[in-house]
Amino acid sequence: MAIITLISDMGTRDHYVAAVKGAIHTQLENAVIVDISHSIAPFNNMHAAFVLRNAWHEFPKGTIHIIGVNPEADGQTPHVVASYKGHYFIGADNGIFSLLFDGKPDELFELTLKLDTDHLAFPTKNIFVKAACHLARGGIVGALGRKLTSVREQTNVRPVVMDNTIKGEVIHVDHYGNVVTNITKELFLSVVKHRDFRISVGRTMNDIKRIHKTYSEVPPGERVAFFGDSGYLEIAVNKGVTGAGGGASQLLGLNVTSVVRLELDAVPSRTPVFP
Amino acid sequence: MAIITLISDMGTRDHYVAAVKGAIHTQLENAVIVDISHSIAPFNNMHAAFVLRNAWHEFPKGTIHIIGVNPEADGQTPHVVASYKGHYFIGADNGIFSLLFDGKPDELFELTLKLDTDHLAFPTKNIFVKAACHLARGGIVGALGRKLTSVREQTNVRPVVMDNTIKGEVIHVDHYGNVVTNITKELFLSVVKHRDFRISVGRTMNDIKRIHKTYSEVPPGERVAFFGDSGYLEIAVNKGVTGAGGGASQLLGLNVTSVVRLELDAVPSRTPVFP
Amino acid sequence: MAIITLISDMGTRDHYVAAVKGAIHTQLENAVIVDISHSIAPFNNMHAAFVLRNAWHEFPKGTIHIIGVNPEADGQTPHVVASYKGHYFIGADNGIFSLLFDGKPDELFELTLKLDTDHLAFPTKNIFVKAACHLARGGIVGALGRKLTSVREQTNVRPVVMDNTIKGEVIHVDHYGNVVTNITKELFLSVVKHRDFRISVGRTMNDIKRIHKTYSEVPPGERVAFFGDSGYLEIAVNKGVTGAGGGASQLLGLNVTSVVRLELDAVPSRTPVFP
Repeated sequence: MAIITLISDMGTRDHYVAAVKGAIHTQLENAVIVDISHSIAPFNNMHAAFVLRNAWHEFPKGTIHIIGVNPEADGQTPHVVASYKGHYFIGADNGIFSLLFDGKPDELFELTLKLDTDHLAFPTKNIFVKAACHLARGGIVGALGRKLTSVREQTNVRPVVMDNTIKGEVIHVDHYGNVVTNITKELFLSVVKHRDFRISVGRTMNDIKRIHKTYSEVPPGERVAFFGDSGYLEIAVNKGVTGAGGGASQLLGLNVTSVVRLELDAVPSRTPVFP
Repeated sequence: MAIITLISDMGTRDHYVAAVKGAIHTQLENAVIVDISHSIAPFNNMHAAFVLRNAWHEFPKGTIHIIGVNPEADGQTPHVVASYKGHYFIGADNGIFSLLFDGKPDELFELTLKLDTDHLAFPTKNIFVKAACHLARGGIVGALGRKLTSVREQTNVRPVVMDNTIKGEVIHVDHYGNVVTNITKELFLSVVKHRDFRISVGRTMNDIKRIHKTYSEVPPGERVAFFGDSGYLEIAVNKGVTGAGGGASQLLGLNVTSVVRLELDAVPSRTPVFP
Repeated sequence: MAIITLISDMGTRDHYVAAVKGAIHTQLENAVIVDISHSIAPFNNMHAAFVLRNAWHEFPKGTIHIIGVNPEADGQTPHVVASYKGHYFIGADNGIFSLLFDGKPDELFELTLKLDTDHLAFPTKNIFVKAACHLARGGIVGALGRKLTSVREQTNVRPVVMDNTIKGEVIHVDHYGNVVTNITKELFLSVVKHRDFRISVGRTMNDIKRIHKTYSEVPPGERVAFFGDSGYLEIAVNKGVTGAGGGASQLLGLNVTSVVRLELDAVPSRTPVFP
């Protein structure tokens, strides 16, 4: 039985998430439901895409991901199901799919289900669940609607490489105050090669000149940069945390959209800086 | 296997919810447990009843709902199991059942289980779980205790209809700052008919004169009124949210118990105002 | 199929918890996963140990508990699996195991799994999940690594008994503002016997002179002391709660590490004070 995951900005104080789960169980006995998060910042596609992007590929192929963030359709925003690398994603085509995938989805269909209800205010429950249960039962994705060719674009800010600088930006601050930038390991390696560099975050004394493998390679309270599980350059403070001395976000004054600059030496260093 | 749902004010920072789930799994291998919410305002029957009322009917018949809010028994407050429209509800008869059902439960029993423990401080785990597992295994509800005839009454404020006015009140503010009133679609239709109306929320400039079907029928930032999935009149601000410009609660100054007044024109309008 | 539980300080706003669950489902179809809590105070072994200590024994024998708090290994901190009273516990040996068990674990092994990935920054997902799935599939614990003889010690403050006083301390404040001390029922019984006592919490007028069985034996708003499900002396205010008049923590000014003093009369009282 395929897993159905849920991501939303619905929080857990109301009946919304439970209503969605009840509807799934009513349509599909033995459904396996996993919460991705219901604490997405309200109406925030960027946040939702970041979290889902870093979680979906951990699930088995065939998993169905319901996206309950900005789920409403309108004239320019159809409800769709996308298949991508063996997973299904159901939501409103409001731009989020372009943030979620590298390139196009493998298949894309507009949901044209006949609905049992005329309540349009809760499509996550009234529309997405029906599509998800169809897929979880082994139904064919093409039966859900009309084929589409492309998703709506919502652009992420990409790092800029100029002269000897990579100018990136903070795209996520996590629960610990760790800061995730939009600089990928691939970009870093292709630009930095064997040159010395410094990651400039505010004052010069805070510059970071090495990439580590994990937090604990530096003492508690120290700044550390590494490529996290997500493949992005992260800046953290080992064991630092908001309210307990401050995480990197608080200590270095970095928030979503803050600039993180990586300055390169003109000449290659003698020793490799990347482990 | 029947589903067991949990609703409580226990939060998720402590061991309480996990202890309840562990106890269920110990008594019932393969139990299917679904959280309704553990973020109910502490000791707040109204909040618990609102959330459970809007969630339980989405679940399959036979589902067992454990109510871990004000769960303690005393001389006037027995522990009970109620059956209602094919579902079971287990809790203390502290008034919450009268808020939960329209009318009487179909059957009602006082729990008179012999307990394995004398720890009375955690009835949700020590008493309700045992009753729930009995039912989930297919046990007969009547075996759980002594038949009772009626639940304790706790009255909800009902809307008042007078002359050309419906005077309702806010009963819930959700995670997005959407405001739910106690005015039902039924009441609205029976009173308003084809007359013009205005929903008066604070200043005259904020009056709402139409009922929409969903949020996105108005531009982002605009006030909108509609009958939500719950059947109650809701007042919202499309994409408005606390911290991002404000939800309806913040923008219009509406909190639980705030009055919402619906004023009617004396003569029917020529065009229907309700879609 | 054994249950896998998760406890962590990862919160629910990020992808971390979902990534762990996805990894489990990928390695083990039909896995049963139960959240203990993901709201542990960041990096706080004491909090994690308190919550897990009070929850794990409710689960069936064979349950596997993944501890995602301070999960990083270093030269002095191996990743381990401990078996204790028929349960398995997987985490970093950072001191938490000594807080979790009374005495030594029954068996202890250092995890020496060959890893599929070199991302060391997320051992909960990349290492603990693999060990947990091995055990859940019925694998032998000894196959996971090298036998160890003892866990690292992290000492909890213990109550001090002197003359006619037990000097304890607050070890946990729960979601309701209830205060849990480190004074166990066993210690209380062995010291107090049939003597009168008073629990001194701040001002004399707040002294508590009886042990009750549960909250509701006193009127709402009253102080009450009892031995909770956890076996520790708790001080609470019936129906008191932060934001609604205040829980015991707020009303009596008691926080984690606050001293709670139990003063005994020199002579036994005529009537038993403990029910």
